Amino acid sequence: MFGAGDVQVREVPDARLDRPTDALLRVTHAAICGSDLWRYQKLAPTPDGIRLGHEFLGVVEETGAEVTSVRPGDLVLAPFKWSDGSCEFCRAGLHSSCLHGGFWGGALDGGQGERVRVPQADGTLVPLPMEPDDPRVPAVLALADVLCTGHHAALSARVGPDSTVAVIGDGAVGLCAVLAAARLGASRIVVLGRHPRRTDLARRFGAVEVVPERGPAAVERVKELTGGHGADAVLECVGTGAALRDALDMTRPGGAVGYVGVPQDGEGVDVRRFYRRNITLSGGVTPARAYIPELLPDVLSGRLDAAAIFDRTVGLDGVPDGYKAMAAREALKVLIRP
Amino acid sequence: MFGAGDVQVREVPDARLDRPTDALLRVTHAAICGSDLWRYQKLAPTPDGIRLGHEFLGVVEETGAEVTSVRPGDLVLAPFKWSDGSCEFCRAGLHSSCLHGGFWGGALDGGQGERVRVPQADGTLVPLPMEPDDPRVPAVLALADVLCTGHHAALSARVGPDSTVAVIGDGAVGLCAVLAAARLGASRIVVLGRHPRRTDLARRFGAVEVVPERGPAAVERVKELTGGHGADAVLECVGTGAALRDALDMTRPGGAVGYVGVPQDGEGVDVRRFYRRNITLSGGVTPARAYIPELLPDVLSGRLDAAAIFDRTVGLDGVPDGYKAMAAREALKVLIRP
Repeated sequence: MFGAGDVQVREVPDARLDRPTDALLRVTHAAICGSDLWRYQKLAPTPDGIRLGHEFLGVVEETGAEVTSVRPGDLVLAPFKWSDGSCEFCRAGLHSSCLHGGFWGGALDGGQGERVRVPQADGTLVPLPMEPDDPRVPAVLALADVLCTGHHAALSARVGPDSTVAVIGDGAVGLCAVLAAARLGASRIVVLGRHPRRTDLARRFGAVEVVPERGPAAVERVKELTGGHGADAVLECVGTGAALRDALDMTRPGGAVGYVGVPQDGEGVDVRRFYRRNITLSGGVTPARAYIPELLPDVLSGRLDAAAIFDRTVGLDGVPDGYKAMAAREALKVLIRP
Repeated sequence: MFGAGDVQVREVPDARLDRPTDALLRVTHAAICGSDLWRYQKLAPTPDGIRLGHEFLGVVEETGAEVTSVRPGDLVLAPFKWSDGSCEFCRAGLHSSCLHGGFWGGALDGGQGERVRVPQADGTLVPLPMEPDDPRVPAVLALADVLCTGHHAALSARVGPDSTVAVIGDGAVGLCAVLAAARLGASRIVVLGRHPRRTDLARRFGAVEVVPERGPAAVERVKELTGGHGADAVLECVGTGAALRDALDMTRPGGAVGYVGVPQDGEGVDVRRFYRRNITLSGGVTPARAYIPELLPDVLSGRLDAAAIFDRTVGLDGVPDGYKAMAAREALKVLIRP
């Protein structure tokens, strides 16, 4: 990406092993993320470009001398941050704060390409018991980010059996949050969104009500739908101050907001807004690597199937159009087959 | 109180039963709260005055026809909000959000006086197995607000065995938060304050380090004292935006801030400040009535003894001077014997 709206497919030097803990991955499936769109809308001109793609899986081609958990030929999933799996934060299940990890892209390779050098391969990659042409691959790819992120929103908001849940946002993360909340036993899920194709999918995933309003009208409507005092758990899957304020306002006293939308504005949240009601605000960058082993069996069994969020498939040459389609909301989420 | 700095002792009509669920209480012990001081500093002139006092205990003199849990002659403790004990929020342990409860003062009686009409007496009052002259009474009085509030901060910040804890504020609530964190098994408690008499008490209550700095210097110092990444649990017991920002900055990734200071300014908290670190922000108005039955046995046994926060005792006539002394920080917390 060379600036807002400017995605190009370029030849770059081949990815290659650099450290003994690296693995080299041939990407078979990748995706465009809603969070990529924020940059697509506002990235300043960047002559050298930035590498894109943090949701991908593929086949290991080569491993460094110290890599023991994956071998050439393995199909593996990469979460949206790499991590060593052994530092104090990884051991605590907070791989997103790994002391020796980082985000894809930047100076490193991105997953929207042919090959990626994977640092800390043992800590990062998850072997998959399947072939690249397995029909379950798109559902598995969702675990790289959006499905784990929806799960993180649900856990952060303490969704459990019998929770009433409101999910703000009908993008891929919001839809995955609906799926995750349903899996955790929520008794009633309301989704806030206004794109019928997406809210229809939310219903398929477990939502029983759709609220197209925003602001105070949305807050009132959610209260009506959840017994009068608000939802036990509100999952904020947008990332704006306005959405976060709505989330806090529609939470039942004693309830919790799980926020996973990457905050896009510096709009403050006034604590006085929720002090009287004892609302808990929790969330942040998802430790996807921690959740994959727990969620993968349910994905493989078909119990947790987010594949329907992918409504368009492109090759590498189609990536620029993929961005355009997602930015115009013509596509919900684009699958890339390099 | 008739305005900032203007507290007067006035004769008012005798409190009397109004509803069958009321009890009439003769106050034997009351206190001045740090939260009363905010109004003492900025209340606009109020010709009719407002009644003060939300921490008190005393002897039941009379009960309405429907009251069953207390009888005339009982010594009882009143938490800082009254509540019915039976609504959906009380049943969930969130008495601070009782659908039929409220704060003392305002149009109702306040506890800094001779007698109080207690609404919802069955839900509100806690009988005490002691006489008014029992030396443990001041320790029990702390349960009306500050000790439960410190406990709420600690629970909200998820303090447990082996937690590292930072407590922001060396007022009565901060000191009680130290005590509560120690009771919950914290492995290391750091208190942030700069009043030696108070921080000495914090050490007696369980703090092992005192940090007089504020802002970034305090954040750095707490990180140094808690393994480099911040405290697992930070208890915000001040109520300003500056203190809350410090709290969020000094929390370890994956940790939690428990905030109980009544928010005094509208300064927003930018979520971007803690999104990357997965900090949980939790707290609010303490459901004191929910905690009293759990904490009272430890108070009676002497295991949880906050009595030392009371460093001055006055009669009703001494209340105006009590406010003055607390505002000037000459007294930490004033006990009133009407």
